Formats: sequence, C-alpha cells, structure tokens
Amino acid sequence: MDYNAAFEAAVNAVRAEGRYRVFANLKRHAGQFPRATWIREDGKEQDVTVWCSNDYLGQGQNPVVMQAMHEAIDAVGSGSGGTRNISGTTFYHNQLEAELADLHHKQAALVFTSGYVANEATLTTLYKILPGLIIFSDELNHASMIQGIRNGRGERYVFRHNDLDHLEELLKAAPADAPKLIAFESVYSMDGDISNVRGTVALAKQYGALTYIDEVHAVGLYGERGAGVAERDGIMGEIDIIEGTLGKAFGMMGGYIAGTSAMVDAIRLWASGFIFTTSLPPAVMAGAAASVKYLKEHNEKRIAHQERAQSLLKKLRAVGIATFPTESHIVPVLVGNAKHCKMVSDMLLNDFGIYVQPINYPTVPKGTERLRFTPSPDHTDEMIDHLVASMDKLWTMCNVARLPAVA
Amino acid sequence: MDYNAAFEAAVNAVRAEGRYRVFANLKRHAGQFPRATWIREDGKEQDVTVWCSNDYLGQGQNPVVMQAMHEAIDAVGSGSGGTRNISGTTFYHNQLEAELADLHHKQAALVFTSGYVANEATLTTLYKILPGLIIFSDELNHASMIQGIRNGRGERYVFRHNDLDHLEELLKAAPADAPKLIAFESVYSMDGDISNVRGTVALAKQYGALTYIDEVHAVGLYGERGAGVAERDGIMGEIDIIEGTLGKAFGMMGGYIAGTSAMVDAIRLWASGFIFTTSLPPAVMAGAAASVKYLKEHNEKRIAHQERAQSLLKKLRAVGIATFPTESHIVPVLVGNAKHCKMVSDMLLNDFGIYVQPINYPTVPKGTERLRFTPSPDHTDEMIDHLVASMDKLWTMCNVARLPAVA
Repeated sequence: MDYNAAFEAAVNAVRAEGRYRVFANLKRHAGQFPRATWIREDGKEQDVTVWCSNDYLGQGQNPVVMQAMHEAIDAVGSGSGGTRNISGTTFYHNQLEAELADLHHKQAALVFTSGYVANEATLTTLYKILPGLIIFSDELNHASMIQGIRNGRGERYVFRHNDLDHLEELLKAAPADAPKLIAFESVYSMDGDISNVRGTVALAKQYGALTYIDEVHAVGLYGERGAGVAERDGIMGEIDIIEGTLGKAFGMMGGYIAGTSAMVDAIRLWASGFIFTTSLPPAVMAGAAASVKYLKEHNEKRIAHQERAQSLLKKLRAVGIATFPTESHIVPVLVGNAKHCKMVSDMLLNDFGIYVQPINYPTVPKGTERLRFTPSPDHTDEMIDHLVASMDKLWTMCNVARLPAVA
Repeated sequence: MDYNAAFEAAVNAVRAEGRYRVFANLKRHAGQFPRATWIREDGKEQDVTVWCSNDYLGQGQNPVVMQAMHEAIDAVGSGSGGTRNISGTTFYHNQLEAELADLHHKQAALVFTSGYVANEATLTTLYKILPGLIIFSDELNHASMIQGIRNGRGERYVFRHNDLDHLEELLKAAPADAPKLIAFESVYSMDGDISNVRGTVALAKQYGALTYIDEVHAVGLYGERGAGVAERDGIMGEIDIIEGTLGKAFGMMGGYIAGTSAMVDAIRLWASGFIFTTSLPPAVMAGAAASVKYLKEHNEKRIAHQERAQSLLKKLRAVGIATFPTESHIVPVLVGNAKHCKMVSDMLLNDFGIYVQPINYPTVPKGTERLRFTPSPDHTDEMIDHLVASMDKLWTMCNVARLPAVA
C-alpha cells in the first residue's frame, strides 16, 4: 500500500475543487492593528489591512491585556506544567473562572483549552451524564458542536436554521419525560444573523428542555457588560449553559462554559477533553481575565464596533455589492464559487493590500462561498472607503453581478 | 425533569467512589521551581515542593523561554485573532513548525491547540483519508488516542500492552491489502515503562502498516537532541507519524504531528479539530520554539533528569516502598485504592509540604491507584531525602504493605 500516494490524493482532491488552503503568513504589530505585514511566499513583505480577524475589538493589542501577560510570565513563568488535576491549576485559572461566572451571573464557569474543545467535550459528556438525552441542534451550528453531538452517539434531531416552528414540531414529537437539550448559537458567524434567543428559551421551558447557547461570536460584543446576546435580550438568567470563547473579542485563546455549580462540577469530573489535557498557561489566563474585566467596563467599544459594521455595510450596499442580510457585526459578501472566491481574495491582497480570506467549504456550504469582513473599532473611514472602492473596481473588472444600489 | 438533581447525582457518584477531584490551587514562582505556594481552601498560603509536574525539566521557568514570550507580546500583542486559515497564521507558527520538523528530521510538522487535539483530530481524520483503514492500538494508549480512534468509527483492534506477539497475531489476521496503522506510545506516563519501538516498527514494515507514535512524555527528554525515544533508539527515520506536545518537557502548551509533507498537508486540509479553532497565541509559539531549540542543544539537562529519577527510585526502594518497574523518568508508587490514595496525598501535602496529586480512575484502572512522582533536574538531594523520609513515616503510620528493601 502506497500511503504517501493516498495522502497526496487526499490533498489533490481538495486542490481540484479550488479550495486548497494557503495560510497567509502574517505579522501583526502591537498598536497598529488592523495594519499588519504579510510575508509573501517569496519572502517579500507587504503592508496590508486585516479585514477578517476575529479579534473584533482589537483587544489583542490592548496594553492592559499585554501587561497582565507580562506580569504573569515574570511571576510564575511560561506553561502551567500539568493537567488541571495534576499540578496545572493555578491562581490565574481560578481567578478567570470567577471572572467568567460573574460576567454571566452564573454560579460557576469552567475553562477549556479552546471553544472547540468546550463545545465538543461538554456536549459529548452531557449524553453520558443524562442517559436517554435527546439533543435538538440548529442545522447551522458550528463544527465543534456537531462533532460533540455526533461523538456522544445519543438521539439527536437537527432543526432548520433558527426555525422555531420546526424546533417545536420536533420537541412535541419526543417523549415528554425524556431529558432534552436545545443547542444553538446566538450570532452565526458566517452569515452574521442572530438567533431568536427569547423564543428558543420559551420553547425549552414549555417542553422541559435545557438550553445550550454558543455565544463565541457575541461575548465581549453584546450586552451592557459584554456577556453576549442573551444579556442584551435580557434572557441570560434563563439560559442553562452558556458557552463562550476567550479567543475572539477577548483577544486571547481558550473556551469556557458557565452555569450552575452542579452542572459545571459534573462536566469537570466527567469530560475526557477537559481532564486529559495540559491546562492553559497562566499568562494566557491572566491576559484573558484582564480582557474580560476591561470589556465589562467599556461599553463604548461595543458601540463603536457596531457603528463601524453598519458603516461598511451601508457603503457596500450603496455600490450594489451583495452582502448577506446580516444583523450583527459581521459583513459577509456572497461570491458563490470556491475558485472565484479565492481569486478575488488573492487580487484584493496582491493589488490592494486588503487581507480577507476566502471562506469556502467545509466552513460554509458549497455554492455559498463568500468573503467575510469583520470591521473593528480601529478600522478607519479611510480604510472602509479604500475597501469599498477596491471591491467596486474588482467587481466591475470581473463583471460580478450586483444588486440594485441601496441609497 | 430535574436536571440539576441529575448533575448532582453525577457528581455524587464520583464522590461515593472516593475519587472526587479537588484541584490544588498553586502559585509557582519563576526561578524557584519546584518550590511553589499552595493556596489552601481557607485562603491561607503554604510553601510546598511540587512532585507531580509534567514540566519535567523546569523549562517553564527558563529565562530563554520567558524572554521569547515577552518579546512576542511586545511585538505583536496577545492572541492570534483567528483560525490558522482565517488570519491566525503568523510568522511564529511557521517558525515553530519548521523547528519541529527539524527536531524530528521530518519534511513537515503541524501544530494543534493541544496534544489531546493532535491525537484525537489526526487519528479520526486518518480514517477519512484512508478508507478501510484498520487501526491497531495499544491497550494503555492515552485517552485522546482512544477518543480519536473511537470517533473515527473504523475497524480497530486493541493489543495487549506492549505485547508484540499479540500485535502480530492481529496484523496477520487482517486482510493483507487493507491500509493499517499501529498506534502506540513511547513512554507510558502512568506506569513509566517504555515500549519496544524498534520491534513495533519491524512488524509494521512486515505487514505494511503505518506507525503512529505518541512521544508526549519523551520529547525534550530522550535522544541526543531531545526528539524522543525513537531518536534515542536510532529508529526515528522509520516512524511515519510522530505526535508530541509542547506542554510538558517544553514547558508551554500545544501539540503537534510530524511526518511527510503529503501526510501533514492532508491532515491540515481535512481535520475538523485543526481547522475550526483559534490558533495558539504568537507568544506561546515563540516560547515553544525557543524551548525546543534550547533543549536540542542542552543534552546535559536530560542527563541530570535521568540521574534524579534514578536517585529517587533507589532511595524509595531502599525503604521497601512499592515503586512500579519504571524504566523512565517517572516514578509511580502503588497505593491501590482511591480513598487511601487521596488520604495519603492529603497528608503529604498538609503535614509534609509535599504536593503529589493522587492518580485515580479514570486516569488509571481501578485497583491500581497510585502516587506518581516526577523529579526534575531542580529537585535537590535534600528534597528527595525529605520526600523519602516523609513517605517512610507515613507508610509506617498507616501500616502500608512494603516490598523487601532493595540495597
């Protein structure tokens, strides 16, 4: 058996579909974000504006966050040295978990190595803890939720995206006394739409289901203290399990869940993906805690963020570029073909110094390939105007279909 | 349905078995490891010696590593801001992957958010890339490998621990033309034994199987440049996939695989657990690269490390304390009961300032509960003597059975 030929074939299959991924080699410069240096494959450097970062508020360069990291390194060194159970729980881990429980007004929180692991490990483990559990999952849920639900191997039903009638139909059909959980997101990050959190919670109460909300693209960004869409909508207290990330608006890395002490303790004791892994470095925990605390107190960052997104959206629509019907801070533009999507993004990068990664399958369904822009409070009017003018030029050059311009 | 009662029941089930985990709240002090401050539940602080860290060489406090982290934070900030594909690949990620490929003399390497994720994502994905794949897995493989193999849902056989006769039996019984992979570890970290790497590779060649070795408890620690047991045994070039961690001997966090360019590229393009997660912070990558580079050039650290482990082992055996037949740097002592194990470790911590976490189920099989000591080059003769004297006293006090003393 020629294994290497098999690996090459797997790579070529992806290449043939035009969705071979070339990772852009970037160097950010603290204090200058969203400007960065792109290191080309030939080694030459080019200045670019980053338009696709999930560091939505530029917290990755907030001096408060950087300082907290520096201090933790000087105090205790680099890594934690073990799993949470075996010498890897530090003062910094406990401090961050207390900060997160407070953010969501929950009894407890638990930090995982990533949001992916938080979703996967928690959902898989819930099937073990609640025998006979049935999970109802939104069809557009993130890969990590899908993976966790699949790996749990219990009963599961997928409801049409944000379709509460369909969800209710499925809930009604399930045995009344079976444990149930509704798994959904608040902000769907590839489309930019926001789910009906209040309506989902009402259904959950009616049919005796737990609610599990993924707020990874909302924490830090929505609500008076940045606890997410559930906070903004005044429904956070009714949600059973909130899952969030430290790697996007908080500008660091790691994921977490928050909820009752009993739920968090059960997951802590039962979840393989939590137990058997080295805990995050103290400096990462310290930086994350500083960032969460900072964003609790700086609602003006969120206001500026939403304004920038609306400004970009308006200017793109004014030249008839087909944006998704986004309601959030994410501005996706439809391209609809993997090769075109890659080509357009290559041209933006090479010719206009605009870095926006093409979003292709498996991140989004085939046929809905897109460019996904994420303006931050640090994206200036000039940057927005340059982006819109460049897209306008490119759309004309490539003869891309437009929508009627919106005034 | 009273969900909270169900969560409490799940917690109480663990408590009833005497294996409820209380995470020790620690504060290390850079430059003083293995000394640390233990923050008791009542808030009081106590000085302790850490005896169970996986920061095996104290790289967590190496100034070279800390300095690399500081510099990266000052240069580029805190988090990466995205997945590897979407704005989260930096100069630092590429640099570390090049360093790791060089360490193992392989064409390429790929960094994951943790060793757990590296194992789980790679093994699951190999089933997708190689249809009909049969995996042969050592029965004592780490939870992350078991999880990855299970989630892949392909054909799998478990062979008795390090039993090459049994492995050959299973290989022989499988169809000759089916793709095969042998998944095993080099150092089994809970027992401290080392597998027969050369013998396993010979069988793989004979039966046309790929080899996948987990060297997480060996990288940095074995071989002239710290590439692991396969390097030490002169067989590294024959291994197809090497999996390692940055979170143990390298004192940081993250995991990786190394192998041919085609294999690494296929995993990069196909593995959900790699694709859909925020990449590690640049400072973590910079610290890890500095640590790998440092340990390539400091074999004397490895020599000191082995000497410390042998010294502890000898002194424990001299007073008849039942150590496992370890061949590595890990010194496990059998207790054999979850409650006793927790009690003994509590007494060591409270009365003797010795921190060693009890190792209970699910980390090890029930009935084999143990204390697991990991001496580092920074553990002094005085610390070893204090540990042995304390254990000796406790063993007498609690009337624990001993082996005949070994002179």
